[in-house]
Amino acid sequence: MATVKLWTDEEVATNDRVKAVFEDIRATRKSDFVNNFWRALANQPELLERTWDSVKAVMVAPGELDPLTKELIYIAVSTTNSCSYCVHSHTAAARAKGLTDQQHAEFLAVLGMASTTNALATALQIPVDPEFLIG
Amino acid sequence: MATVKLWTDEEVATNDRVKAVFEDIRATRKSDFVNNFWRALANQPELLERTWDSVKAVMVAPGELDPLTKELIYIAVSTTNSCSYCVHSHTAAARAKGLTDQQHAEFLAVLGMASTTNALATALQIPVDPEFLIG
Amino acid sequence: MATVKLWTDEEVATNDRVKAVFEDIRATRKSDFVNNFWRALANQPELLERTWDSVKAVMVAPGELDPLTKELIYIAVSTTNSCSYCVHSHTAAARAKGLTDQQHAEFLAVLGMASTTNALATALQIPVDPEFLIG
Amino acid sequence: MATVKLWTDEEVATNDRVKAVFEDIRATRKSDFVNNFWRALANQPELLERTWDSVKAVMVAPGELDPLTKELIYIAVSTTNSCSYCVHSHTAAARAKGLTDQQHAEFLAVLGMASTTNALATALQIPVDPEFLIG
Amino acid sequence: MATVKLWTDEEVATNDRVKAVFEDIRATRKSDFVNNFWRALANQPELLERTWDSVKAVMVAPGELDPLTKELIYIAVSTTNSCSYCVHSHTAAARAKGLTDQQHAEFLAVLGMASTTNALATALQIPVDPEFLIG
Amino acid sequence: MATVKLWTDEEVATNDRVKAVFEDIRATRKSDFVNNFWRALANQPELLERTWDSVKAVMVAPGELDPLTKELIYIAVSTTNSCSYCVHSHTAAARAKGLTDQQHAEFLAVLGMASTTNALATALQIPVDPEFLIG
Repeated sequence: MATVKLWTDEEVATNDRVKAVFEDIRATRKSDFVNNFWRALANQPELLERTWDSVKAVMVAPGELDPLTKELIYIAVSTTNSCSYCVHSHTAAARAKGLTDQQHAEFLAVLGMASTTNALATALQIPVDPEFLIG
Repeated sequence: MATVKLWTDEEVATNDRVKAVFEDIRATRKSDFVNNFWRALANQPELLERTWDSVKAVMVAPGELDPLTKELIYIAVSTTNSCSYCVHSHTAAARAKGLTDQQHAEFLAVLGMASTTNALATALQIPVDPEFLIG
Repeated sequence: MATVKLWTDEEVATNDRVKAVFEDIRATRKSDFVNNFWRALANQPELLERTWDSVKAVMVAPGELDPLTKELIYIAVSTTNSCSYCVHSHTAAARAKGLTDQQHAEFLAVLGMASTTNALATALQIPVDPEFLIG
Repeated sequence: MATVKLWTDEEVATNDRVKAVFEDIRATRKSDFVNNFWRALANQPELLERTWDSVKAVMVAPGELDPLTKELIYIAVSTTNSCSYCVHSHTAAARAKGLTDQQHAEFLAVLGMASTTNALATALQIPVDPEFLIG
Repeated sequence: MATVKLWTDEEVATNDRVKAVFEDIRATRKSDFVNNFWRALANQPELLERTWDSVKAVMVAPGELDPLTKELIYIAVSTTNSCSYCVHSHTAAARAKGLTDQQHAEFLAVLGMASTTNALATALQIPVDPEFLIG
Repeated sequence: MATVKLWTDEEVATNDRVKAVFEDIRATRKSDFVNNFWRALANQPELLERTWDSVKAVMVAPGELDPLTKELIYIAVSTTNSCSYCVHSHTAAARAKGLTDQQHAEFLAVLGMASTTNALATALQIPVDPEFLIG
């Protein structure tokens, strides 16, 4: 159902650039499973490389935000963008990183609350309080 | 510039329902400052009450997600919805709750990454991997 | 602040196609005021004509939905699309067509409710009930 | 295909808070059918209660906007947010409340028109006319 | 799965207005295939006529933008709006107009880049440089 | 009005990583002007570097899509995302790359048309024709 071909492991093996990225995904994630997102991007080796490099730098490398918080931010963006694939894949990733049912419930409550107040603030065209401005 | 009148403290004092909510906002936040969002909602006392009740339950009451994480989720939704007011007010709130420059940088990186991969997944119409499905 | 020039009445008078549309807007609305939207579209006479023709057919011509209901639908779309100009212009139009404060409050409540439940349904990726399907 | 389990009636019966909401939904709607949205929210009893309370207050309680108008506003928001589930469920609800084919056609025309003019106003970054401002 | 009936060729033959549009689509595109978008719009003959007239004027009539560029703009809007149907139909249309794999890869790279920088610019609420303003 | 400080040239000179990116922007664009987007990102040197690297690879490096087409795709995404800053900056960039008034008019027509048909396809939940599917 994709607008491009999804590459099988056999097809990946025929392209050195794609093969190298897939090997790095597997090594980095310590799992043989490579999801469809990367199999679709395999049609564009340069974009595949750049996207994976960014994902590794942003989502995998350690930082001051913990991995679960990053996933929740990801799901928040993906939900607001109505990206069905991304909601599924990152909710699964969040669960794998320890998301509890109670945390999911609180996440959904914040998500719903933000969506409502965004709509109200936009419908009312509320001017930004000077207190919120920088400098 | 709003599409409705923003209520001054004098006007708030004339309406018992609005006044009660404003007093609760001040008591809950331990601050005299009430931002324009609530001054705009004051035109709709019932909506004002229900919205504040939800904000208190979702954002103020303690839970398993810490207050800063909730703010980051809020900003993620607000940015994706292009709500200028909400981005300003919740970035200010996140700073008040301790957001560091480094955390902000990492948040922006996740936000940008999610926005890109959302667009790619949608443009490629990638089918959800069976591994991500529940049940 | 626009990305194109806004045409003054003097400039409108120099272009026959633009002039004809502006005259029809004034005659149809029984008002001399022509808002900036049309002054910006004046740079693209064909698009101006086609857009005004559609607006006249859709918003002005009588039908089974009353004019105020149409404006509320318009504001709902404009808010969700974060179109500041459109929220302002159509809230003004709705008021001119009789929108009361109570109706505005109820509209905002529905808008906020829909925004929340949209986010929840998308975050939960809820499958459509067979009962909702046609045929 | 959801990111959470959909509760069956048997599972609903095991949780008092969830059970109470489901009974109120059935009593309020005078129908035994409870759609998947509520079966998904059952995983978060507090969110379920708060959401149903709001839906009852906003969509079911009588007001100055008639029920069909509220559904059209709901569909407008849901379409603009690309919420497939919500478009399906609220188009079905609108039909149940008497939406005619002609009204649906007019609704779609307004929806399409607003979407176009939103895009044009944003692409042209048209400044808001002073005539539209409050106060 | 649509919210309206999709008209078969037999049903199209029973309505003169719908039939005329379908004949014009077939003649204009030099193909017997009429896709589901038009079969759904057939329920609203006036909207069908106006939409097809606009599509013919905008997408089919020759202009200064070549047909493939127009399709890429279309897919960019459709992806950002998360319109699954539109992404599929216009990616197929772009391929029929000669889109190469390399062009598709570059298109996706621009799409992803724009999505990221949009999110960053909105999250940072960057003021427009005076150099970008008109007049 | 930004949520972060905009770096002046004096401040840029104090940070080697930021300074290097600014020098590359100036050298690549053959212009001394560096717009606010980069002055805001200067607060996050790593994100600044990665974003500029991607922009250079995607927007500046030669490819099969000409530079003006890339800008139109960029504006299409930015408009649909309601990113005011991005619409302004990339409309200015498109003009600098030769966008004519007639091309702008045709671009706006495609943008408006896509926005309408996206809304209609989503409101009607039209199933994708098998003819559009890959493989």
